[in-house]
Amino acid sequence: MVDIATRVYNHKWKIDPIIRSLIDTDFYKLLMCQSVFRNKPDTIVRFSLINRTKSIRLADLIDEGELREQLDHIRTLRLSRGESTFLRGNTFYGKRQMFRPDFMEWLERLQMPPYHLEKRDGQYELTFEGKWPEVMLWEIPALAVLMEMRSRAVLARLGRFELQVLYARAMTKLWEKIERLRRIERLKIADFGTRRRHSFLWQDWCVQAMIEGLGDSFTGTSNCLIAMRREVEAIGTNAHELPMVYSALAETDADLARAPYQVLADWHEEHDGNLRIILPDTYGTEGFLKRAPDWLSTWTGIRIDSGDPVQGAETAIRWWQDRGEDPKKKLVIFSDGLDVEKIEELHRRFFGRVKVSFGWGTMFTNDFRGLVADDALAPFSLVCKAVSANGRPTVKLSDNPLKAMGPADEIARYKRVFGVGEQTPYQVVV
Amino acid sequence: MVDIATRVYNHKWKIDPIIRSLIDTDFYKLLMCQSVFRNKPDTIVRFSLINRTKSIRLADLIDEGELREQLDHIRTLRLSRGESTFLRGNTFYGKRQMFRPDFMEWLERLQMPPYHLEKRDGQYELTFEGKWPEVMLWEIPALAVLMEMRSRAVLARLGRFELQVLYARAMTKLWEKIERLRRIERLKIADFGTRRRHSFLWQDWCVQAMIEGLGDSFTGTSNCLIAMRREVEAIGTNAHELPMVYSALAETDADLARAPYQVLADWHEEHDGNLRIILPDTYGTEGFLKRAPDWLSTWTGIRIDSGDPVQGAETAIRWWQDRGEDPKKKLVIFSDGLDVEKIEELHRRFFGRVKVSFGWGTMFTNDFRGLVADDALAPFSLVCKAVSANGRPTVKLSDNPLKAMGPADEIARYKRVFGVGEQTPYQVVV
Repeated sequence: MVDIATRVYNHKWKIDPIIRSLIDTDFYKLLMCQSVFRNKPDTIVRFSLINRTKSIRLADLIDEGELREQLDHIRTLRLSRGESTFLRGNTFYGKRQMFRPDFMEWLERLQMPPYHLEKRDGQYELTFEGKWPEVMLWEIPALAVLMEMRSRAVLARLGRFELQVLYARAMTKLWEKIERLRRIERLKIADFGTRRRHSFLWQDWCVQAMIEGLGDSFTGTSNCLIAMRREVEAIGTNAHELPMVYSALAETDADLARAPYQVLADWHEEHDGNLRIILPDTYGTEGFLKRAPDWLSTWTGIRIDSGDPVQGAETAIRWWQDRGEDPKKKLVIFSDGLDVEKIEELHRRFFGRVKVSFGWGTMFTNDFRGLVADDALAPFSLVCKAVSANGRPTVKLSDNPLKAMGPADEIARYKRVFGVGEQTPYQVVV
Repeated sequence: MVDIATRVYNHKWKIDPIIRSLIDTDFYKLLMCQSVFRNKPDTIVRFSLINRTKSIRLADLIDEGELREQLDHIRTLRLSRGESTFLRGNTFYGKRQMFRPDFMEWLERLQMPPYHLEKRDGQYELTFEGKWPEVMLWEIPALAVLMEMRSRAVLARLGRFELQVLYARAMTKLWEKIERLRRIERLKIADFGTRRRHSFLWQDWCVQAMIEGLGDSFTGTSNCLIAMRREVEAIGTNAHELPMVYSALAETDADLARAPYQVLADWHEEHDGNLRIILPDTYGTEGFLKRAPDWLSTWTGIRIDSGDPVQGAETAIRWWQDRGEDPKKKLVIFSDGLDVEKIEELHRRFFGRVKVSFGWGTMFTNDFRGLVADDALAPFSLVCKAVSANGRPTVKLSDNPLKAMGPADEIARYKRVFGVGEQTPYQVVV
């Protein structure tokens, strides 16, 4: 029996929207948004899309009109009643009413702000400028739209069975990874793959596969919509965006040196437990920890997001020991460039010494490497970053000089202020 | 949107029937049935299921009640109006009205005859005794039911995603075979995999994959229902059953020696062109061809179904040359134990010397080797054969002594009558 109603319903869409919900985004965006909404609601921030993989000429692959349709569609979305009920009523990290009523009222009325789109040298310049709590919510859907439109452009060339076999191969590949992960005792791993996913449906499939394949070892997903639909934990704390904007707003070098800690002081006021995770690498992990106030060492854990993860975790362990904390009671979250081998290696090395957890991103939700001709579906390095705040450029250094961002003179100034010396470069895969 | 009607429809079945149509069978069964219906309508034949893979204890795996339900369901089936129209109106092998009106009227009224089922030593004894044109139609559905119930018994242990990944792997495996076959220039290959298929839906998927993957190189399917639904050629000519029963009916050794040729004389009257394919191995290819009447050498081709296929084809080529025929104009169909390597090898060796064609069976529609624990879905060697005719045992020798069937004294007599000497054994895979 053909379900005529479903077919008619599917065909009445002018487009097939990629983003169909305001909460199809990373959970930490909402957490940070609430913090920004309270502390810096009127800061004017500019976000910009940056394709670090120049060989992929997005503007040649993706039609501008279709891209605009997808972005315009996002501007028609509003928080639905069910989504609002979920955010208001759900327990996140063991806490009810994580989101304050004033923030929820604002979010319920939110329309995504305008975007600015231009083509240049085979790439898209896509920027969002406006009040920080509004424009920051563009990051994840903008990345997901570009990633999925690129997937669609490649998939459009394939036949019906080629498509089915492509997904069969991708499923097999992921399942083999899950089977390997299943062998790691007392693994804790979460989905961090929204921004660079192959597609929404694929991420949703991957999460369900993890639920069945890993059971309790799968701790949840950073995707708020999928967490709601699949009834798993929504996972996430905070990101580089906060210290980058706080730092750009600093008037003096002394203010600048204090800015990253001010971010966490604001966070400390609002959150406790597993939400108190330090992201120390924005301007160099080593110096950040050395100069950190004592209350920071009482936080729950550290997320390692750039540089050599072994070195990062060893640095964190030494720091906790120096501050009289027991590393065994601390959580280390690895989230940079992970795939199964790396996860196995890091777990082997650190399990038992600290509480270990993994935030698995691109190679979880977008490992289509080697599956089509010319590797045309391999993931690539697309980011969407806060590039200025109140007209002043932002800077990111991280523990990998290849990931540094910002004007050269400002990078030099930040290196001086934060005491960052020579850094080892690591190939950025995705 | 849930399609409530479809769900209710699916749930109202007491069982999930494996065979849902009388033409979900091999096309040659219908061709042979028409021949038998005309020439030997009242012969009483007994068919019996034989599991040559004793290690698979079917009666432990498959519930007897459920097996009876499946077999009983087949006895409720009647040729549908659309199926009858297809058989009456379609062009088979370039010929319209392949099936005579009297045969079609009989087939439209046909109910499958009773079966006899017993458990013994962990196996099922499943036999069908009655008029030859009726009982012969049990062979394919009986095999397909047992094969699929075995698959279901194994699949019942798997979780939802394990199932999805299992099929993803099977699809990938088949598609990789198709990609290799695509590289063989001017390949001609057909689906012969109904009897030992993993399941009906899987065979249907495999055929569609071949249509997309191989284009014109895929010449059709032996499955009549799938040929109708997917609008490809129905493929098939004749099988061992005919000479086996004709031979069992022979009163004297002289009659016996003539019987295999009488089969083809009856066939010759009715069919021409691509339907005139000799299956010479029932009592040894070598002797069969040596003693064959001259008119047989004018037939279109030979099917090689046991023994060493290279040797079989070389024997056929020499025979045609001896009889003054041009082998280049003759068709050799390979149909025994094929997989991609063997197809590549045989094509390389014989393409250009004869017209080469392949009937790909079990490793096409049931290659689930290595996909689940204990290889519990690997195909196995199940056959359903005519074992007696009017109370006299049938005998098959073939070109492989491991495939011989019948009482020992009768085998000895047949070997004497047909002048079969020492034979080389070949491992029977499936």
